Amino acid sequence: MIRVLRGERLDPPPVWIMRQAGRYLPEYRALRARAKDFLTFCYTPDIAVEAVLQPLRRFDLDAAILFSDILVVPDALGRKVWFVEGEGPRLEPLAAQAQWDFGDLDRVVPYLAPVYETVRRLRSEVAADKALIGFAGAPWTVATYMIQGKGGDKDMARRIAYERPGDVDALLDVLVEATARHLHAQVEAGADCLQIFESWAEGLSERLFERVVLKPTTRLVARLRALGVDAPVIGFPRGAGALIGRYARETGVTALGVDTQTPAAFARAEAPAGMALQGALDPMLLVCGGAALQAEARWVLEQFRGGPHIFNLGHGITPDARPEHLAALIGLIKRG
Amino acid sequence: MIRVLRGERLDPPPVWIMRQAGRYLPEYRALRARAKDFLTFCYTPDIAVEAVLQPLRRFDLDAAILFSDILVVPDALGRKVWFVEGEGPRLEPLAAQAQWDFGDLDRVVPYLAPVYETVRRLRSEVAADKALIGFAGAPWTVATYMIQGKGGDKDMARRIAYERPGDVDALLDVLVEATARHLHAQVEAGADCLQIFESWAEGLSERLFERVVLKPTTRLVARLRALGVDAPVIGFPRGAGALIGRYARETGVTALGVDTQTPAAFARAEAPAGMALQGALDPMLLVCGGAALQAEARWVLEQFRGGPHIFNLGHGITPDARPEHLAALIGLIKRG
Repeated sequence: MIRVLRGERLDPPPVWIMRQAGRYLPEYRALRARAKDFLTFCYTPDIAVEAVLQPLRRFDLDAAILFSDILVVPDALGRKVWFVEGEGPRLEPLAAQAQWDFGDLDRVVPYLAPVYETVRRLRSEVAADKALIGFAGAPWTVATYMIQGKGGDKDMARRIAYERPGDVDALLDVLVEATARHLHAQVEAGADCLQIFESWAEGLSERLFERVVLKPTTRLVARLRALGVDAPVIGFPRGAGALIGRYARETGVTALGVDTQTPAAFARAEAPAGMALQGALDPMLLVCGGAALQAEARWVLEQFRGGPHIFNLGHGITPDARPEHLAALIGLIKRG
Repeated sequence: MIRVLRGERLDPPPVWIMRQAGRYLPEYRALRARAKDFLTFCYTPDIAVEAVLQPLRRFDLDAAILFSDILVVPDALGRKVWFVEGEGPRLEPLAAQAQWDFGDLDRVVPYLAPVYETVRRLRSEVAADKALIGFAGAPWTVATYMIQGKGGDKDMARRIAYERPGDVDALLDVLVEATARHLHAQVEAGADCLQIFESWAEGLSERLFERVVLKPTTRLVARLRALGVDAPVIGFPRGAGALIGRYARETGVTALGVDTQTPAAFARAEAPAGMALQGALDPMLLVCGGAALQAEARWVLEQFRGGPHIFNLGHGITPDARPEHLAALIGLIKRG
């Protein structure tokens, strides 16, 4: 996978699956029951390491990804974060507060020490020929959760971005620095490459996209390089549509995560020459299986064949996906 | 507006607003209270005509749009449709049924006679220099509601499209024919142009997009032309991202509705030369108002200046928009 991230085309392509350690696996659900809440799960290396290893035992995957959450950064900044079972994360929304207090940046890395301990243990537990991926949420995606206090539609975050531009830009600045330090610490602990999840790149005008996605991501990547990180960085601006080209060309990311609806040929034409593309099978096909999975997976392989490709889904695998469908998919990819 | 639809560039551009007759207007909310349910509202010409005229009295708009709903087509096909106040439409979901019965196509136009009566009255009530827009939902968008029984995410519709391709393709065929007849009848009654709302074009792989969006829309436009309709047709594939180009080039639509996140320059480059573009201010700015509205509206005007442009939002106006912000926007556009 690292060779592909550096620009080499391999056939068959390496494969990993976003959220490959997740609720679709019965052994994950059993493990999850051992931690009292989701953040404790993330902050307990014994459990987090086991979660990462579970899918590697079942499937011939080419990468392991740290088990953590994009909201550990606001948590480390002192914003209270909790998870409502079956609903998702909750924070005290900044939108309701007149004065925003962003917490102490120097607290981030010490607070997240258990996450780096998980990375360290993983680097010795995971086979050397498999990449270990560290990750974080992109500044805008994390900011939307902090502003709204939850996921779902991001109308309130967009509204606040228009109405309180100074506050939002300051928040993005804090997140750039905190996220750079968090990713740097993951690489120091042994991560081979990094992914930045911009899960909420959609629905922004180009003007707002420049301000809240392009500029903060560009500064984040530059800050990582300034900190001495030379690991490849996969940027995944999900839902960016036609703006994916500017993201690929301007932010400095090494590789581009592509969502299901973005044609591979479009991404290839828009990205700098030789940039690795990662994606982009519809996760629903791991629910369906059968002939539809076979046909769409072959089509994805063919669409991305023109350059360096890392096979993945266009979004995370869902809890209702069937493990046997994932096994069939990986068999199909590895047979070529 | 019709001149622009035919390819002329006007400065200032004509303007109308998706859902301009809507809940953000207090007089609309009062009128809505006069009908016992939403479909009765749509099927009562006295009320529907008044709803269309309300925003024209307040604002210097260049077009009126029929007051109706995209779900009148499944209603006319005999699928039970009802609206849950504050939640949206409900139907008996096809996903739960082993055998799909699509109803009687010959029933559609007689059943929807009150809608055409509304169009007839509007054509005499609305000033001749304002375009009267008829509309319908695109086959895939209407199919998603019929399959799922409601709006929201369209995961179930996508799943059924993979798992029951024959059923879904047959449903799309029925919707192509029913929608063509419904749009044809609107033009016969006096509509000057038509808009096809593909509200759920997002999240589809190019392969699925071809099957459920491009092909049915192409057949719908061809069927309209075969029925003798030569009115301009605006296609609005919201969320189609990079696939908007294929939509503009392949479906036969006259003009292209653009959503907020699609750069005007991209749409212009992808669409056939001289095609009118419609869009695409973020509807949130009519909630915010103020400096943000002014700055973004000027930016939209500038971005679209390179060719024929109809000013609109990138999505429907929301119930929390302020009428005075819309007045300010239209003032800004008309002053140039």
